[in-house]
Amino acid sequence: MSNIAKLQKVGDSTFGRIEKINSELLTMTYGSLVTQLLRDFEDTDAVNKQLEKMGHKIGVRLIEEYMAKSNPSAGSCKEFKDTAEAIAKVGFKMFLGFNAQVTSWNQEQTQFSLVFQENPLNDFVELPERLKTEGLFYSNLLCGVIRGALEMVQMRVECIFVKCPLRGDDVSEIKVTLIDYLKEIVLEDE
Amino acid sequence: MSNIAKLQKVGDSTFGRIEKINSELLTMTYGSLVTQLLRDFEDTDAVNKQLEKMGHKIGVRLIEEYMAKSNPSAGSCKEFKDTAEAIAKVGFKMFLGFNAQVTSWNQEQTQFSLVFQENPLNDFVELPERLKTEGLFYSNLLCGVIRGALEMVQMRVECIFVKCPLRGDDVSEIKVTLIDYLKEIVLEDE
Repeated sequence: MSNIAKLQKVGDSTFGRIEKINSELLTMTYGSLVTQLLRDFEDTDAVNKQLEKMGHKIGVRLIEEYMAKSNPSAGSCKEFKDTAEAIAKVGFKMFLGFNAQVTSWNQEQTQFSLVFQENPLNDFVELPERLKTEGLFYSNLLCGVIRGALEMVQMRVECIFVKCPLRGDDVSEIKVTLIDYLKEIVLEDE
Repeated sequence: MSNIAKLQKVGDSTFGRIEKINSELLTMTYGSLVTQLLRDFEDTDAVNKQLEKMGHKIGVRLIEEYMAKSNPSAGSCKEFKDTAEAIAKVGFKMFLGFNAQVTSWNQEQTQFSLVFQENPLNDFVELPERLKTEGLFYSNLLCGVIRGALEMVQMRVECIFVKCPLRGDDVSEIKVTLIDYLKEIVLEDE
């Protein structure tokens, strides 16, 4: 079985003890969060930043759940390419309920795009024109989640939303760029 | 099959087209929301109220999903007693992934308690002493969700959290009191 097929299988199976839920409560809770931030911050770009920051905190913790529930042997990420597939096929499936496609690799294999049709965070949402013009990326939390999670496995990345159906695009697209590998601090015994 | 057994069956089955997800992203998104509100409001009671208000808006919309996905014949609520069981066995299961128990009916059958051991919203959460003393009900959104959903089926209720493990209780308990039935406005043809 190929690595990607293995990942797909891990993504499709049920994980651990925690019960699965329908996504609507997440959708609407997320909507309440964005609405509250739009109330709190005048500037739409500040809302994007705040969502990313909150996502980062979530990603830092979510990676533990991911590690605990995914099959580490199937999901080991020796190369950045494996990491991309693990996010798309296991991470997305586990926490959002669908797979993303990995596309648009650059030549150095340090940048790819995650492309997805579905997005439960977007369900039932329609953005007012003003927020589209001002550049709100409604699901920007996801960029932070990916950045936070990868930071915990020693990869510093930049994540930006480049397409979102709420702004008229046909799909969602998040561009992920590897900046560098963080050094693991190993404390040696004397 | 008894009505409750039927409800249980509906609650256990998968619902509709939307994929099921693990609850952690909900847990953490909800945590971000509460944290933001604690930042925004000085007064803990105002946070409780705001969570309830947000939940109300969610409940008003969530009932549509509930209606679309549950089997209406199994879940019809002729009496307040049926409503209680439908919330506990179908609603909770559908959106939170577990069942609640219906207990503590009053003699008039207008008041009951929903008691539950699990609560994904509480996962990984520990309240600082100050917030316990000041009376934060961390999952107070749920009270609003129930109130909002029942309002859409012509029942005005009051929902209050009375027990929460984050405050040292052994279980979660929400008390639901029927205030009155709202009159349905029927527009007759001339």
